[in-house]
Amino acid sequence: MSFRYVKPAGEAVFKDSLTTKMEDRIVPYRQGKGAEAGIIGLPLSKSSISPSTASEAPAAIRKAFRSLTTYASGKGDYAGTILDFGDVLMHPTDIDENIARLKESIRDMLKQEACHRYIILGGDHGISYPSIAAFQEKYGTIGVLQWDAHHDLRNLEDGGRTNGTPFRSLLEAGILKGEHLVQIGIRDYCNAGAYAEYGEEKGVHVYTMEEVERQGITTILQKEIARLKKVTDAVYLSVDMDVVDQAFAPGCPAAGPGGITSRELISSIAAAAADPSVKAMDLVENDPSKDIRDMTSRLAAYAMMTFLHAK
Amino acid sequence: MSFRYVKPAGEAVFKDSLTTKMEDRIVPYRQGKGAEAGIIGLPLSKSSISPSTASEAPAAIRKAFRSLTTYASGKGDYAGTILDFGDVLMHPTDIDENIARLKESIRDMLKQEACHRYIILGGDHGISYPSIAAFQEKYGTIGVLQWDAHHDLRNLEDGGRTNGTPFRSLLEAGILKGEHLVQIGIRDYCNAGAYAEYGEEKGVHVYTMEEVERQGITTILQKEIARLKKVTDAVYLSVDMDVVDQAFAPGCPAAGPGGITSRELISSIAAAAADPSVKAMDLVENDPSKDIRDMTSRLAAYAMMTFLHAK
Amino acid sequence: MSFRYVKPAGEAVFKDSLTTKMEDRIVPYRQGKGAEAGIIGLPLSKSSISPSTASEAPAAIRKAFRSLTTYASGKGDYAGTILDFGDVLMHPTDIDENIARLKESIRDMLKQEACHRYIILGGDHGISYPSIAAFQEKYGTIGVLQWDAHHDLRNLEDGGRTNGTPFRSLLEAGILKGEHLVQIGIRDYCNAGAYAEYGEEKGVHVYTMEEVERQGITTILQKEIARLKKVTDAVYLSVDMDVVDQAFAPGCPAAGPGGITSRELISSIAAAAADPSVKAMDLVENDPSKDIRDMTSRLAAYAMMTFLHAK
Amino acid sequence: MSFRYVKPAGEAVFKDSLTTKMEDRIVPYRQGKGAEAGIIGLPLSKSSISPSTASEAPAAIRKAFRSLTTYASGKGDYAGTILDFGDVLMHPTDIDENIARLKESIRDMLKQEACHRYIILGGDHGISYPSIAAFQEKYGTIGVLQWDAHHDLRNLEDGGRTNGTPFRSLLEAGILKGEHLVQIGIRDYCNAGAYAEYGEEKGVHVYTMEEVERQGITTILQKEIARLKKVTDAVYLSVDMDVVDQAFAPGCPAAGPGGITSRELISSIAAAAADPSVKAMDLVENDPSKDIRDMTSRLAAYAMMTFLHAK
Amino acid sequence: MSFRYVKPAGEAVFKDSLTTKMEDRIVPYRQGKGAEAGIIGLPLSKSSISPSTASEAPAAIRKAFRSLTTYASGKGDYAGTILDFGDVLMHPTDIDENIARLKESIRDMLKQEACHRYIILGGDHGISYPSIAAFQEKYGTIGVLQWDAHHDLRNLEDGGRTNGTPFRSLLEAGILKGEHLVQIGIRDYCNAGAYAEYGEEKGVHVYTMEEVERQGITTILQKEIARLKKVTDAVYLSVDMDVVDQAFAPGCPAAGPGGITSRELISSIAAAAADPSVKAMDLVENDPSKDIRDMTSRLAAYAMMTFLHAK
Amino acid sequence: MSFRYVKPAGEAVFKDSLTTKMEDRIVPYRQGKGAEAGIIGLPLSKSSISPSTASEAPAAIRKAFRSLTTYASGKGDYAGTILDFGDVLMHPTDIDENIARLKESIRDMLKQEACHRYIILGGDHGISYPSIAAFQEKYGTIGVLQWDAHHDLRNLEDGGRTNGTPFRSLLEAGILKGEHLVQIGIRDYCNAGAYAEYGEEKGVHVYTMEEVERQGITTILQKEIARLKKVTDAVYLSVDMDVVDQAFAPGCPAAGPGGITSRELISSIAAAAADPSVKAMDLVENDPSKDIRDMTSRLAAYAMMTFLHAK
Repeated sequence: MSFRYVKPAGEAVFKDSLTTKMEDRIVPYRQGKGAEAGIIGLPLSKSSISPSTASEAPAAIRKAFRSLTTYASGKGDYAGTILDFGDVLMHPTDIDENIARLKESIRDMLKQEACHRYIILGGDHGISYPSIAAFQEKYGTIGVLQWDAHHDLRNLEDGGRTNGTPFRSLLEAGILKGEHLVQIGIRDYCNAGAYAEYGEEKGVHVYTMEEVERQGITTILQKEIARLKKVTDAVYLSVDMDVVDQAFAPGCPAAGPGGITSRELISSIAAAAADPSVKAMDLVENDPSKDIRDMTSRLAAYAMMTFLHAK
Repeated sequence: MSFRYVKPAGEAVFKDSLTTKMEDRIVPYRQGKGAEAGIIGLPLSKSSISPSTASEAPAAIRKAFRSLTTYASGKGDYAGTILDFGDVLMHPTDIDENIARLKESIRDMLKQEACHRYIILGGDHGISYPSIAAFQEKYGTIGVLQWDAHHDLRNLEDGGRTNGTPFRSLLEAGILKGEHLVQIGIRDYCNAGAYAEYGEEKGVHVYTMEEVERQGITTILQKEIARLKKVTDAVYLSVDMDVVDQAFAPGCPAAGPGGITSRELISSIAAAAADPSVKAMDLVENDPSKDIRDMTSRLAAYAMMTFLHAK
Repeated sequence: MSFRYVKPAGEAVFKDSLTTKMEDRIVPYRQGKGAEAGIIGLPLSKSSISPSTASEAPAAIRKAFRSLTTYASGKGDYAGTILDFGDVLMHPTDIDENIARLKESIRDMLKQEACHRYIILGGDHGISYPSIAAFQEKYGTIGVLQWDAHHDLRNLEDGGRTNGTPFRSLLEAGILKGEHLVQIGIRDYCNAGAYAEYGEEKGVHVYTMEEVERQGITTILQKEIARLKKVTDAVYLSVDMDVVDQAFAPGCPAAGPGGITSRELISSIAAAAADPSVKAMDLVENDPSKDIRDMTSRLAAYAMMTFLHAK
Repeated sequence: MSFRYVKPAGEAVFKDSLTTKMEDRIVPYRQGKGAEAGIIGLPLSKSSISPSTASEAPAAIRKAFRSLTTYASGKGDYAGTILDFGDVLMHPTDIDENIARLKESIRDMLKQEACHRYIILGGDHGISYPSIAAFQEKYGTIGVLQWDAHHDLRNLEDGGRTNGTPFRSLLEAGILKGEHLVQIGIRDYCNAGAYAEYGEEKGVHVYTMEEVERQGITTILQKEIARLKKVTDAVYLSVDMDVVDQAFAPGCPAAGPGGITSRELISSIAAAAADPSVKAMDLVENDPSKDIRDMTSRLAAYAMMTFLHAK
Repeated sequence: MSFRYVKPAGEAVFKDSLTTKMEDRIVPYRQGKGAEAGIIGLPLSKSSISPSTASEAPAAIRKAFRSLTTYASGKGDYAGTILDFGDVLMHPTDIDENIARLKESIRDMLKQEACHRYIILGGDHGISYPSIAAFQEKYGTIGVLQWDAHHDLRNLEDGGRTNGTPFRSLLEAGILKGEHLVQIGIRDYCNAGAYAEYGEEKGVHVYTMEEVERQGITTILQKEIARLKKVTDAVYLSVDMDVVDQAFAPGCPAAGPGGITSRELISSIAAAAADPSVKAMDLVENDPSKDIRDMTSRLAAYAMMTFLHAK
Repeated sequence: MSFRYVKPAGEAVFKDSLTTKMEDRIVPYRQGKGAEAGIIGLPLSKSSISPSTASEAPAAIRKAFRSLTTYASGKGDYAGTILDFGDVLMHPTDIDENIARLKESIRDMLKQEACHRYIILGGDHGISYPSIAAFQEKYGTIGVLQWDAHHDLRNLEDGGRTNGTPFRSLLEAGILKGEHLVQIGIRDYCNAGAYAEYGEEKGVHVYTMEEVERQGITTILQKEIARLKKVTDAVYLSVDMDVVDQAFAPGCPAAGPGGITSRELISSIAAAAADPSVKAMDLVENDPSKDIRDMTSRLAAYAMMTFLHAK
């Protein structure tokens, strides 16, 4: 062809011939393909109680993710391929319909039996209800490790299926058992006693920030993953980015002080992901319009790599 | 009382004893009260096609409005009282329910027969459908002067009652007749030919920016208000802030270049509001989270004063 | 009344029926009322050496504070009521007058004998001089725990009673004894040797960041509170937000690197507040116009809850 | 295929079935294809005298451009197809090499004889030298209408081929004759007398802002296009966005006050583009990292549509 | 000397050998020197009613000013020298003392008899009282052309000598006669009727924005300068940047919509400055911490050049 | 002289008579002068792979540095003088020429034999190649302690001497031996395996973040400095600010999560600088246009003081 230097729009960027970037490892899904891992975007945030455009996170995180290199010291290059299933189309004004679309889409993705592990990009935390429900249909009993400042066990009567209700929805529907849910990083003064009690009654394992400081987050994760893998068919990680202190993840609608650091997030995800029982991770509550210097998206992308490249 | 300098929280601000601010003219509505004008907030923006937190505009505009003084050269002090009806509570996940709440609330407000004129603070443009519908029930045939870069005549099938459909909804429901709708400031490259044609078929009077440049916006307004007052029972002004050039109103989700200036907005609202047939004005599509230095809210507040203090 | 969904302006926000927010616990003070704690705003920042609008902090912190829930794990719901005394009105051009107004206002507040504990919202650190002076009049010998990157012991000749002088003013006036003042978190390269020496001569207990790293901030606090309670009638916490690293509290006019983390601030305030000898806390040097994503105000609000809900 | 709602990443956005967006009209170029217009990106800004990342403009403007609809009142839908040739790959450290790459790439593009008109997206103004040089090779005598606050006639000795030198380079190389260059919107206090004199000696037609205010920008354009078309083989529009007042185009490295408005830019481009002798337009000096709310990119995109859809 | 490329800190910037910048025309004042014009900074903004750091404007405007070139089309290079007297040192906590310092400093500057014209950089509008008072002592009867959205005629009892009182102070003190004060660009809803009446009683000539739209700002200026020069000994221009619309001058604490454009500011200053009776101009109410892309400082610098290079 | 309060432009700032600031310790270099330390700015960032204006860092860091006080607890006042050599003038379009200028300038500076220690302010990391090369000429065998998230060992073929190549350049040229290079803070997913291997082959000592967490950064530094001082003639610290977590140093073009804290940076620099074998430190990759609240520049300035005031 006659052009030496003209590249497709957006691709005229410097390439170091010895560096592999994740963008070279991600391919759009086509029926029949198989790979180590899959990604899908669930751009729902109209279900949020406070204003959120976490619907823009799949694009922002993908951008950060594609720019990472494949290499980690001590582990070498990540050799897997990532299938990108794309994003689920949201209806502009029917939120219940959207929750149904998300469940159907995750179900359809899992039916392809194309990947060993999945990354689900929210959206707000409301997406974990349809997502985990679809995983439960596919895998059986599900264990959930939830990184979160909040219980997300709000009642369903006051406002329907908001971003404050996913685990209530799952428990109430019998999709998830209380003792199979582990909540890590819960903070004071942003939860209600009624929901803490509800969780306790249901047998949810809760680790507050005080507990995280006392035991160390990696220790907690290792202990709980060891327990969950024995009693469930698959483990699902649900990472609400607001578990991280606002200084490290400013882009969360409910960002606040006193959370975990970026290093604690990374090392705890590594600890969990090392176990093969872990099949999926969702990343939620990152609103790029509130982010500073894309910090939250970059941290989310780094967490994704840590998840994929575990062990 | 024993405190000389302690004031209720938020009110410890310097007062010039000879200056009257609008905050002194605004009182919360209580049943039975009457006044020259009323305000109500309609904080709906989950109906927006693109991400919007125009739901925060009522608070932002009220804040700017309350800081204005009452005085205008040539007109003296605005002597009226403004009743603040408050804001309509939105359901977090049921948008159709919200549209119903808005209509019911405007209807209830009008039933009080408390005011001569009303200001309705959006929210996105989706609020104009329930609002105008309620005004039509109360006043009869309604004429609408719409300041807007967009026709807002989108079909209702693709996405339900979004912020792109209010006037379609009104025309289809027979609440508004095409010839009673005047659209001013329509811009190129942000509308579809199909909707321009639809408007033309329905008899909508459309003035593009080219026309505004040619005739002058005040001239257009005076001509159309003169026509509408003869054939309708009341005139309603619907001001989509994105009619204004993005340099003057950066806070609009669909902000763009080539729009009217702040001075053109003010003088054209003055021209319209001078006529007693005008009973209401809504201000929509101001998203404070996208605004720069509160410019858009301040312009909206100035437009409100111009509306109230007309003639 | 005839409105189902219309709420007073600003209150049309989603309420979870099982969640209690601090806004439900805060009531404006009226003479004769008593409660566990009181709040007052001291919006003075014209006394700052460098430009500051810390005068806007009372409003910003109150907003963040009212949004917190009452619940903490292990402690249950905070059951107290908070009386909000409001803010002290500042004169626009007479700063000495303002310092007098602050002292008079705190004195008047304490005369009400309405509360067990008080939170004083600055303003810049200049407010601690009149505030502590009024507390001394009421309670007798005062011990002060000062979280701060700076000594704030500048001479009074060069610039009058600025935000760099409150503890000098107190020591010089004999209101506070040097050995009753504990300074924690003092940093290098933002203080003068002359003032470090002055503090030493006066017997002030100083803990630099190096010391904080060595001993741990909670240990220091516990040790010093145990000492102070024996030799004073009441202990006053003075929290200059710039003790916190700029990454966690970017809104301070004198923000800098190398400070304590948000978790260190919270745990050290908890350690101090657990003792009943502590009667008051001020929070100063938060300039909302310099803040990022309201981080500093949210951290301040969290610190307030930690103070109130101690033990 | 088994997915109802899953769309390729980034494409899960609401589509109005009756609205056509420009993104549907843009296709990547493949050899042998022909269309009404072509686009190419020239992401060079290391040649800028002051820091610039105008190299990011092609991506930012394309994004804004693709979101525009095809419809303009009075002209109907734009029916053409746009071939996107992509972007030219820049060497990280060899700027002279980059200028050579740009010229070769434009030359190669023109050799395809694929389009009637071309849009060249800078980059800084340095790209106009290789671009116009390539057009001259292809078309013969070139007339240039330059919208600019600056002459861009700096000497080549002091700093090589910077963004201040493109027209000097063209005149010195004999590629462009002085009388075939028209400069519109030149402002005071940002140019040197030496270069104004140089232009005058070369016969350049210069219209300062004072002249623009006096004659009207459309009048000037119509007069000059009528002249140029008689004496040249093709006319090239070179639009430095800093001709626009900083309020309307804040993203320019050399933004300043006293420039033309967005409406003047649009109407003047329409006036020029109406003539078939116009074969190309470049848009330069838009640095997205300095932009506010993407105003400058949106104005540039609107200018592109005006150019394409002329007459 | 042994360094070829090492330049003093901050001066290692590209120089075009044929371009003269204003920085080459500005020299620090030393006793005995004379020049066409002088500059002095009056960094007082603690006198502002609302929070302001206009005290940072002298530095910001000087920076923008020094970067301008000397050349204007039709006038050639500005050939004068500017003596920079520096800035007046402000006391941190004594505002009355500061007003005295400002007057003494202007008086001392004028005693040098070093310049034909002076530029005074505020600071807030409070600086015009001491500045004009000093000019009156030196020159005799003073005429003032005030560009402003506000009358600045507030009473002195409520808050002392704030930025809302300079012209009241001058009128009350008999330093300025009402008929020698011309206010241009006064806007609605940001002034009090009481002060409009006060101005009227004193014989102040007031031109509202409505009047500016009707007559044209240049016409007004020419007429008033012609009148003032006959009845006064010297004319002083006092330019409150908030006369400009918030889109063009976002950095003003009291920015608002409906003001004049950047082109109207420039042309009206040119019209006034053309007359030799004009001896000084102050520029006030530019708060760089609120500015966007330094727009307001750049406009102020451009206005300064227009003032200096008049006729 | 006749002015009491007028100070040279920019110097009218409050001075505390007992506080010494670093600005009083910095003097411009003049031939023949000697002092404890020297500073020079190397404002090159056109060699960066991704867009960077790290060229503005010398000015931003100097400003932060000059504002620091001289005092550190436990060490007393810094008593040295700092000679400021200024900045190296960069050619706008010839990057190779610039690298030559940097080397020549550092060489010329060292020839003066004026200082015991030097601080070199980048610019991007590309400046370390010419800088270290010049130090090697002067001092002999050089040991380098590199704080960095990246190896900066990219090949030289793909893009020339970019900011990703300085240590490759030094190793290839034989200026630096692999075992004399220590890299601390290397992070995953932002490096290539090929370069990790290259470093290993060359004998570079690499400490990843995992290693930093395990051993503690101060321990590593102490161990390596002890080793290097035995086998080299001088030690050079090269501090890429992106070694710091993005929350603490947001201004780096390649900022990311999982890095060291501000306290770890400060304590590790103190540990290294305590040894007299250390002769120089460069600080690179701080782009002020990307910074938040000048955090990165303030951290850099604090690091400089720590370096100068060691032991």
